[in-house]
Amino acid sequence: MSRIEAPSPTGRITLSIDAMGSDRGPAVVVAGMARSAGKNPRIDFIVHGDEAVLTPLVERRRNLKDRVTIRHALGVVEMHEKPSQAMRRKDTSMRSAIDAVGAGEAQAIVSCGNTGALMAVSMVRLRKLEGINRPAIACLWPSRNRGGFNVMLDVGADIRADERDLLQYAMMGSSYARNGLGLEAPRVGLLNVGTEEHKGRSELHSAHTLISDNAEGGGFKFVGFVEGGDIPGDRCDVIVTDGFTGNIALKTGEGTAKLVGDFLKEAFQATPLSKIAALLALTSLKRLQKRIDPRRVNGGVFLGLRGTVVKSHGSADATGVSAAIKLAYELAASNFADRLAARVASIAPATEDAAQ
Amino acid sequence: MSRIEAPSPTGRITLSIDAMGSDRGPAVVVAGMARSAGKNPRIDFIVHGDEAVLTPLVERRRNLKDRVTIRHALGVVEMHEKPSQAMRRKDTSMRSAIDAVGAGEAQAIVSCGNTGALMAVSMVRLRKLEGINRPAIACLWPSRNRGGFNVMLDVGADIRADERDLLQYAMMGSSYARNGLGLEAPRVGLLNVGTEEHKGRSELHSAHTLISDNAEGGGFKFVGFVEGGDIPGDRCDVIVTDGFTGNIALKTGEGTAKLVGDFLKEAFQATPLSKIAALLALTSLKRLQKRIDPRRVNGGVFLGLRGTVVKSHGSADATGVSAAIKLAYELAASNFADRLAARVASIAPATEDAAQ
Repeated sequence: MSRIEAPSPTGRITLSIDAMGSDRGPAVVVAGMARSAGKNPRIDFIVHGDEAVLTPLVERRRNLKDRVTIRHALGVVEMHEKPSQAMRRKDTSMRSAIDAVGAGEAQAIVSCGNTGALMAVSMVRLRKLEGINRPAIACLWPSRNRGGFNVMLDVGADIRADERDLLQYAMMGSSYARNGLGLEAPRVGLLNVGTEEHKGRSELHSAHTLISDNAEGGGFKFVGFVEGGDIPGDRCDVIVTDGFTGNIALKTGEGTAKLVGDFLKEAFQATPLSKIAALLALTSLKRLQKRIDPRRVNGGVFLGLRGTVVKSHGSADATGVSAAIKLAYELAASNFADRLAARVASIAPATEDAAQ
Repeated sequence: MSRIEAPSPTGRITLSIDAMGSDRGPAVVVAGMARSAGKNPRIDFIVHGDEAVLTPLVERRRNLKDRVTIRHALGVVEMHEKPSQAMRRKDTSMRSAIDAVGAGEAQAIVSCGNTGALMAVSMVRLRKLEGINRPAIACLWPSRNRGGFNVMLDVGADIRADERDLLQYAMMGSSYARNGLGLEAPRVGLLNVGTEEHKGRSELHSAHTLISDNAEGGGFKFVGFVEGGDIPGDRCDVIVTDGFTGNIALKTGEGTAKLVGDFLKEAFQATPLSKIAALLALTSLKRLQKRIDPRRVNGGVFLGLRGTVVKSHGSADATGVSAAIKLAYELAASNFADRLAARVASIAPATEDAAQ
């Protein structure tokens, strides 16, 4: 494990960037790299993709001088490619990016590519952590909590999860909240259609018992069932659910926030008076925009693998890519993957007991 | 059927109101009735609950003079009562309100009470429409479409739905959109974690085929799979999903809209300049608030029963209750239940064919 995740002795972090998966093309990815490099002098990059395309893009950026290794890979995993298909291809920038972490050359991967393919190839090339059945994708969600964010998982790695998977998500999610949000004892909630114990699907009732029994050992507090309204709320810090429900909740929340934001813009364009008002309120509105800007929290983290993989939105712009790079840097610098592995290893016997 | 739903010959509509289920107590329900009565001279009410409590509340409202019959019922279904428990109680305001529609004395029911209990008692006392397996709850959702709203169902009647249920939701949802939103050929989308045909659970693939085959006969267009971001979007008018997913999406969307709204308020309180800006933009901001105010779309409609039931939010204020009453009035006045029954009857044979 330490081979994979230990930061290099000089204190620098090397990130492995898949340049080719983005909806907006490699130029946006390189622009995001340049933005991050400008802000953080301790990052280096190995960037994977078509050398002929990448070389001029990298050379144009002063911030990236002497900090980027280009690794040629001609194949691109397309957005609508099936994971099973992507797994068979050996020449892709995605696989090359993953292998650089597998070989210990870089400490974390960032890709804007096809989520299902990225998870499938990561599972084959990096492998799952011992004791993990289904890896999960965790995202950060703007919330009323003091830190400003909650963690939700799984938001789309797997459409199914049984009670043991949900317990593992609780463990991994609280580990992420502990390291990523600095919460000593994160509060975990299990997503359901009501907070009463008789509500919801039967596997959720089993998961309720299992998570409750393992909370103390896992170093988190279990608040029981929570509802959709608690995802941006302050009843808990970590929301646990299956990848089908989590993915739909994530996209519904993003879509709703965007709708309200667009309606707000229209409202300020409605009359001459409201246009003046918008000017006066500019600073406040910018602060609001920053609080709810999905680009700021861009980056789903794959949990449960032997290595750190950050999935950026396919449509992320340079700001979004840079946010995903920042997240990958912080996770690598804090040795998150090692800590998570240690936590999962420590609870695995308890889970097996519970399942017997 | 016509016995249940036909408006009375004088053109007036009588609504049956459960006054006792609200989190805020009966005074708020009566205030909502008074507000509706003031705006619409064609509504009368039968209101159900504790006579000693209701009489002074009703007498205090000039708008309600000679338009309200109080029907005494001492029992109240509590918010956390199990549906099975509520079904056994004969003395409740909820059951009394439902029975008034069952007996043809009123054309639609409005209740702020326990959703599960309201559905269970409605199913027993009104019964399901012929050919319907699982009734559903449909809600209106603020959207980018020209009418300003989309329909989503099921948002919580039943946590499970198989492919035939999902087809019936498509039929009932498009009938609601046709009558409630005035859309001639509503576009129906099936909620999934991606729009590609290979994504998601297997029952969704069967439902995709079944809905696609029945779209022409059902008078709607099927746009295929849609994602969470399409719920407030303009790719379709009706979003079909199971009640577990729909309930979580609904509450996530509401919670997110409320979070953004509260952040907006904070932003305008941040500096003296932003406070002045808020004053200048008052009209525009009020228009925005109206567009996203969940109280305006208060009222889930139960579809698939022999009678119209509108479920208002338990925490609705007078504005919210009045919105639910308006919806119940419009559905009763347009003979919606009869139209829906006719539509369901016309497609039942086709569904049976498809299932064979």
